[in-house]
Amino acid sequence: MILALDFGGTKHTAGVILPGGQAWLKHEQVLSPSNPDAAYDLETMIQLGRRLLEGPKPQAVGVSFGGPVDALSGTVRLSHHVPGWEGIRLASLLEGAFGAPVSVDNDANVAALGEQRFGAGQGLSSIFYITISTGVGGGWILDGCVWRGWDGMAGEIGHTTIDPDGPLCLCGKRGCVERLASGPYMAQDARQRLQADPACGAIMRRLCGGDLDAIDGALVSRAATQGDELASELLQRSAWAIGTGIGNAANLINPQRFILGGGVTKSGDIWWETVRQVAMETALPEVRIEIVPAALGDDAPLWGAVALVMDIDRS
Amino acid sequence: MILALDFGGTKHTAGVILPGGQAWLKHEQVLSPSNPDAAYDLETMIQLGRRLLEGPKPQAVGVSFGGPVDALSGTVRLSHHVPGWEGIRLASLLEGAFGAPVSVDNDANVAALGEQRFGAGQGLSSIFYITISTGVGGGWILDGCVWRGWDGMAGEIGHTTIDPDGPLCLCGKRGCVERLASGPYMAQDARQRLQADPACGAIMRRLCGGDLDAIDGALVSRAATQGDELASELLQRSAWAIGTGIGNAANLINPQRFILGGGVTKSGDIWWETVRQVAMETALPEVRIEIVPAALGDDAPLWGAVALVMDIDRS
Repeated sequence: MILALDFGGTKHTAGVILPGGQAWLKHEQVLSPSNPDAAYDLETMIQLGRRLLEGPKPQAVGVSFGGPVDALSGTVRLSHHVPGWEGIRLASLLEGAFGAPVSVDNDANVAALGEQRFGAGQGLSSIFYITISTGVGGGWILDGCVWRGWDGMAGEIGHTTIDPDGPLCLCGKRGCVERLASGPYMAQDARQRLQADPACGAIMRRLCGGDLDAIDGALVSRAATQGDELASELLQRSAWAIGTGIGNAANLINPQRFILGGGVTKSGDIWWETVRQVAMETALPEVRIEIVPAALGDDAPLWGAVALVMDIDRS
Repeated sequence: MILALDFGGTKHTAGVILPGGQAWLKHEQVLSPSNPDAAYDLETMIQLGRRLLEGPKPQAVGVSFGGPVDALSGTVRLSHHVPGWEGIRLASLLEGAFGAPVSVDNDANVAALGEQRFGAGQGLSSIFYITISTGVGGGWILDGCVWRGWDGMAGEIGHTTIDPDGPLCLCGKRGCVERLASGPYMAQDARQRLQADPACGAIMRRLCGGDLDAIDGALVSRAATQGDELASELLQRSAWAIGTGIGNAANLINPQRFILGGGVTKSGDIWWETVRQVAMETALPEVRIEIVPAALGDDAPLWGAVALVMDIDRS
């Protein structure tokens, strides 16, 4: 049996599957407490894995981690959400706990691999998977393998610059794709505009019941669908940013397919049409562009963790 | 012996070298006539190759072509400079002429390979070679091999968008890297500004002897070095555009080294410092950035053509 583990920011998921299997034998998710730390997360995951395995050793363990990882050594660099992860040798610790070989990579790379082996990228050798939710990040499959880059930092489309006069991002630069496209930033900009101009955004005000702090990316999308002009403007800008980022990536690397997942991709047809239109306009005419929704949803990292381990078997 | 051929826009170069050799046995360049066509270019090159070989068949022929090529079939898609190249099966024709296997790719990819095997990228497995002269283009080496992309279009950093409010490029978009950074576009913008404002650009006016049509990218660089404010502004903008494009490419792919060639890279220290500074600011702090000048100059495609053929021998 193969054990797949997904360390997320707010929840952890584990699954058990037979080698070559197409369905989970077992699959379980647990939510993190409100103030998690690395030791607690690790212990929770080991317990969860043992419960699913019910005794026998797994053949291998594949792991998706929600933050930068040195995939070669299986060491976590840090978690953006949970303290205490810096320098933790996650692969070694899990090898000790489960008595089996362990392979670890960050969630964007693992999700890309999951979509390529089991989802919207099956049969393709080059894809770029992009997740657009709290942040905007991506993972490359090139020549059938995860492309990590020299520092393991490849795929950071969220912090490519596309507008030098754009709003300031937490990273210190102006006009990053993430600053223009992510759910929290859309919500932040909506709140500021609603505070500054009492006449605008009637539908957003109604949907949040007057509590501007309750506005999130999903609410902006919903308000746009119902005809709110400010919400539509922000959603269009998000789609423009993603489309421009994809067009630029297509000109640079020209992969076979772009696969998009994450909450913001559930914003409806106008968002998708704008992304596709802008990406086509940004790429040179000779560059084919195919942009499709992710097929595996929240389980993409878990399926990718299985694929990581299949790769170990092969080598 | 290996025969290397470089079909350029305005000149053709050929070289002959022993397999594994580090120096040309023979090396010759011919200029194109003022109205070249594909048939003339091809015949010129075949004659040049035969003259250098002096009788014996080459072991293999490597070819760099100045325009989009289908590297797999060795077919030219088009030349941006010379008419009649559309769909020409260059590899087959040369195989017929020289009685040896022929490998063809476009000049940016071949120059990248040349720099990686014989120049500023030796010993590295991932580089991005960028040429900044009449146009701005690039070639990737990933995992030690040329990365061409699904449509053979990878490397087009010149047409990544970095300023949606920037000036209009011939490609139809605003604020492409090439529109802001290339020599001819710098010269075009200089002429327009000099025409619009008779008070500015005294040094540029002196250097061109009052003939604004004589202004080219090199003149803008020279004027900037001598303290011309308008020229400095345009050169800084060129460097800003290249730095931003490199920073974005680093965030996306994170290669070991960026290697820069072409006339604009001879613009002096300020241009280079700005490129490096902006690239570092654009890339995330975890992404290492190394930017160096190309080592092989105009001969990079010819050395790359040799490397293309070494790859045939190995497979």
